[in-house]
Amino acid sequence: MKAAPNSVTTGPIQGSRKVYAEPKSHPGLRVPFREIQLTDPNEPPVRVYDPSGPYTETDAPIDLAKGLPQVRREWLAKRGLETITPRAVKPEDNGNVAADKLVAACPAERSVFRAPAGTPITQYEFARAGIVTEEMAYVAFRENLAREAAMEGAAARHADGESFGASIPEFVTPEFVREEVARGRAIIPANVNHPELEPMAIGRNFLVKVNANIGNSAVTSGAAEEVEKLVWSIRWGADTVMDLSTGRNIHNIRSWIIRNSPVPIGTVPIYQALEKVDGDPLKLDWEVFKDTLIEQAEQGVDYFTIHAGVRLRHVPLTANRVTGIVSRGGSIMARWCLAGHRESFLYERFDEICDICRAYDVSFSLGDGLRPGSIADANDAAQFAELETLGELTKVAWDKGCQVMIEGPGHVPMHKIKENMDKQLRECGEAPFYTLGPLTTDIAPGYDHITSGIGAAMIGWFGTAMLCYVTPKEHLGLPNRDDVKTGVITYRIAAHAADLAKGHPAAKVRDDALSRARFDFRWEDQFNLSLDPDTARAFHDETLPKDAHKVAHFCSMCGPKFCSMQITQELRAEARAMGDNEKKALEAEAGMAEKSEEFLKGGGKLYVDAAE
Amino acid sequence: MKAAPNSVTTGPIQGSRKVYAEPKSHPGLRVPFREIQLTDPNEPPVRVYDPSGPYTETDAPIDLAKGLPQVRREWLAKRGLETITPRAVKPEDNGNVAADKLVAACPAERSVFRAPAGTPITQYEFARAGIVTEEMAYVAFRENLAREAAMEGAAARHADGESFGASIPEFVTPEFVREEVARGRAIIPANVNHPELEPMAIGRNFLVKVNANIGNSAVTSGAAEEVEKLVWSIRWGADTVMDLSTGRNIHNIRSWIIRNSPVPIGTVPIYQALEKVDGDPLKLDWEVFKDTLIEQAEQGVDYFTIHAGVRLRHVPLTANRVTGIVSRGGSIMARWCLAGHRESFLYERFDEICDICRAYDVSFSLGDGLRPGSIADANDAAQFAELETLGELTKVAWDKGCQVMIEGPGHVPMHKIKENMDKQLRECGEAPFYTLGPLTTDIAPGYDHITSGIGAAMIGWFGTAMLCYVTPKEHLGLPNRDDVKTGVITYRIAAHAADLAKGHPAAKVRDDALSRARFDFRWEDQFNLSLDPDTARAFHDETLPKDAHKVAHFCSMCGPKFCSMQITQELRAEARAMGDNEKKALEAEAGMAEKSEEFLKGGGKLYVDAAE
Repeated sequence: MKAAPNSVTTGPIQGSRKVYAEPKSHPGLRVPFREIQLTDPNEPPVRVYDPSGPYTETDAPIDLAKGLPQVRREWLAKRGLETITPRAVKPEDNGNVAADKLVAACPAERSVFRAPAGTPITQYEFARAGIVTEEMAYVAFRENLAREAAMEGAAARHADGESFGASIPEFVTPEFVREEVARGRAIIPANVNHPELEPMAIGRNFLVKVNANIGNSAVTSGAAEEVEKLVWSIRWGADTVMDLSTGRNIHNIRSWIIRNSPVPIGTVPIYQALEKVDGDPLKLDWEVFKDTLIEQAEQGVDYFTIHAGVRLRHVPLTANRVTGIVSRGGSIMARWCLAGHRESFLYERFDEICDICRAYDVSFSLGDGLRPGSIADANDAAQFAELETLGELTKVAWDKGCQVMIEGPGHVPMHKIKENMDKQLRECGEAPFYTLGPLTTDIAPGYDHITSGIGAAMIGWFGTAMLCYVTPKEHLGLPNRDDVKTGVITYRIAAHAADLAKGHPAAKVRDDALSRARFDFRWEDQFNLSLDPDTARAFHDETLPKDAHKVAHFCSMCGPKFCSMQITQELRAEARAMGDNEKKALEAEAGMAEKSEEFLKGGGKLYVDAAE
Repeated sequence: MKAAPNSVTTGPIQGSRKVYAEPKSHPGLRVPFREIQLTDPNEPPVRVYDPSGPYTETDAPIDLAKGLPQVRREWLAKRGLETITPRAVKPEDNGNVAADKLVAACPAERSVFRAPAGTPITQYEFARAGIVTEEMAYVAFRENLAREAAMEGAAARHADGESFGASIPEFVTPEFVREEVARGRAIIPANVNHPELEPMAIGRNFLVKVNANIGNSAVTSGAAEEVEKLVWSIRWGADTVMDLSTGRNIHNIRSWIIRNSPVPIGTVPIYQALEKVDGDPLKLDWEVFKDTLIEQAEQGVDYFTIHAGVRLRHVPLTANRVTGIVSRGGSIMARWCLAGHRESFLYERFDEICDICRAYDVSFSLGDGLRPGSIADANDAAQFAELETLGELTKVAWDKGCQVMIEGPGHVPMHKIKENMDKQLRECGEAPFYTLGPLTTDIAPGYDHITSGIGAAMIGWFGTAMLCYVTPKEHLGLPNRDDVKTGVITYRIAAHAADLAKGHPAAKVRDDALSRARFDFRWEDQFNLSLDPDTARAFHDETLPKDAHKVAHFCSMCGPKFCSMQITQELRAEARAMGDNEKKALEAEAGMAEKSEEFLKGGGKLYVDAAE
């Protein structure tokens, strides 16, 4: 038997501390934030969204074998769920691994729940019934972030933006969350068997989210590594994590991951199903797949990628592609369909899949098995035919009471990105889009976090609700710890750039706080406000290592004589020192232009209301 | 006396070789390309644009003390230039450095040229006079790249794109280059005193270019480091290099840089002028500035950043900014103007500056001294007022016979980028735009190559002709060798993504070649076609180091059983093996959709010409 995981990275991110706050409307909820303290007493602390869970508390009492605290236990207890005897674990669940290589399951004990027939239990069903769940209230408070502060703040903080038809509210209420979930425009992935979850929402009217992939492969890694990858990903800002394991011990590694995850966990059940039939796609059938869905739903997986849109009729559309089918799930299903010249069992059994997902509130992530794997194949007939099928399935899933999001590409040059987004919104009734990148060129393996970060920022701006990260190792190998961090930070940049451009009311607060710190030479504040304080500080220290330089009014780039920031500060001081007359003369020169602009911005009205 | 530089990085980039080719129209010209050989005999070698100069030849005979071969000497000899006695070097040119710290000047001897009054010698003047120079012919051939191949190739290679009103030709002729230069829409920075230059063009109808910054500061680095930074930057794809030195030995370090540079060198003369007056902006005057312009023009600097758009009247517009003035040149001039309440001497003497620039064909890079230094300040009154002044100065420079490009921001959220580009095109009569990023968020110091790579790709798509790189050390310190490479590769990604999106006729050739290599598991070809073969190979080797794995039909990401590419290949083989009947049945199912799309793409015509 292999050793169980026993430690992960813990402790606060440099320069900040974990805080929990209660919404007034729901005093029992403890909603987590990260608060960055600033050195200037005139600057309020900046509160940021924090998916990192209890791991970033000071002295967090983490015991992986016991799992995280069960945030949702009491909420779930009131919902009429039935407690069931879980399906017995079979040897093939762990890839028939030899006893000496078996990873023990996480010993944390949890009851296993399921919805009785006819009892509404999914967030979608509650929302449709007009019920605001604890999850919705939690999410509303979490999404508001620093909006109170932003709304009380100076005019300079007012957001502008172009949201392409999204409806981002000034303030998120629990009722707003309910409405978004009810109309299928947002999901709260939250399996009833994942009580450790800190709820979060995915939807175009919420903050853009980021997913990180972890998982072992036939060649590498065990439970300890995977749990650490989970904790490491959320530390840097991953909002959900997909476990894409394809090696041995899949079932037991997953038990460690879910019991210790404060974020939704997604999987691609066909991977494990394939393992159970010795890796031969032709041996797959509905029974083994269904068995796998139930196995994973009982463990607490929050969303399933299901490639039900890869239909027999779509396969020939890929024949002349430069890179054929690049989705693993898509290629497995295409092979299955083609071999027997038969329709996909995922498509034909979609109703039954919905019934299983509904019973545990596992959200759908309808997989894009025919996504383009190269610029050449972007937006082609195969991709769009599948997207139309996904639109059809979205409606089926809603009718069955399930939550749904839609996966998107892939490799798409910049001028074809918006077409993707617009078609997805249209075909899928605004169900959340969840895209991998897209990569905007094929020529930079080793840097595909960047080729795809460009596309991710753009598609996030256009309306994508969650961005699946890409690491520097994409196309080349499995990411290590540094790659995971680089991927997450790159995607946090893309998501934040998208939030800014959409005009999210609170997004700019952090940019402005950092810019003021930069201008004031508050180096520590600049580091701590950044997405990665450790790297910012280390880079600064490479050329100006001394502590004295942390308060210096210049940096190594220009040295003291050429520092534009310093010159500007002196310049402001001079302007202040100038006599009023001189100053007025100067301002008069510029004033006409300024006033004229103000006039035009005010809508060109000659008279303004006294209230303004 | 300090040791002179004696070695730099040389040799071909992995998997490729330097080739020189002659345009049929101008058989004397030797135009450089990099040719990537592929392992599949059915795949033609891929020829890519190559700014790296002779350093990447096999066994390049580099002697830094002699400088590079004088590519342009014979062309220049026929142009009626007068040979002059250069201005004597003064101690302050090198910052009055002590003898033991003095870097010797590069000993390579060159005649110094200048235009006699009234004799047209700039590329702009030649173009206006209808003369196609050798530089224009060279550039035309260089820009065509693989277009012949692309145009003869399969339909799949045909470019699509959205160029926002640019006029990118299917094929670049010398006459097209002349027209673009004549209407000011492109420049060929090429000082008559830089005979070592391999000419290149900057304009929205050419490939998007990348600039890298080098230069010492008061605290760091000498001549050897700077020449190596130059060579290292162009090795990875920098098309021009700016020497932003502000430390000692500026004059002599620059002599090493220019004599050994095959790419245009830009500077910001005010930096050296300020050094000459002991770093006190208030001591600056026209005489010291003019002296510096002549000093640098005689050395061979190809373009000058001149912050002549920072006028006295603009300064108060910056008073309420979050980050004031962040351009060094801008803040120096603002201080100068404000201290004496007087108009900028750069603005007032702009005619005289033009006369100097024209005499050597130094191109203008009109500096954006009031660019925004934060998201909060983007597209504000100060920035746009300066841009309007730059538009006015552009016309003055053209009237004087000079080449001009315009510098742009800075920090701009995504939704405000296009407004920048559109205003620049309008105000500056389509003179090339040359932007720093823009950074799309302020919250990621340590990753600003990425925050800005997003903006750079977008603004390049919208029409920016050259992108000034940003390294991971931006805002934190001076970039080291790795940072320079990361910055250049990131910006090559942005530039290429922009070329693809604009619909550049040849851009997609490399993407498609790499994608085919990827799909065929030609790992070596995939590495060699990438922007950075060393990193791609190293990343692959981290998890699958054995040579055997270089031919493996899978990688460590999924292992052999889950490789979608492999499954698709098998799937194609199966499809081929299927009887014709089955295949037809399948295709018939998909056929209707496909035919319908074909029909619509053909413009919805019911009958097509026989020729089609």
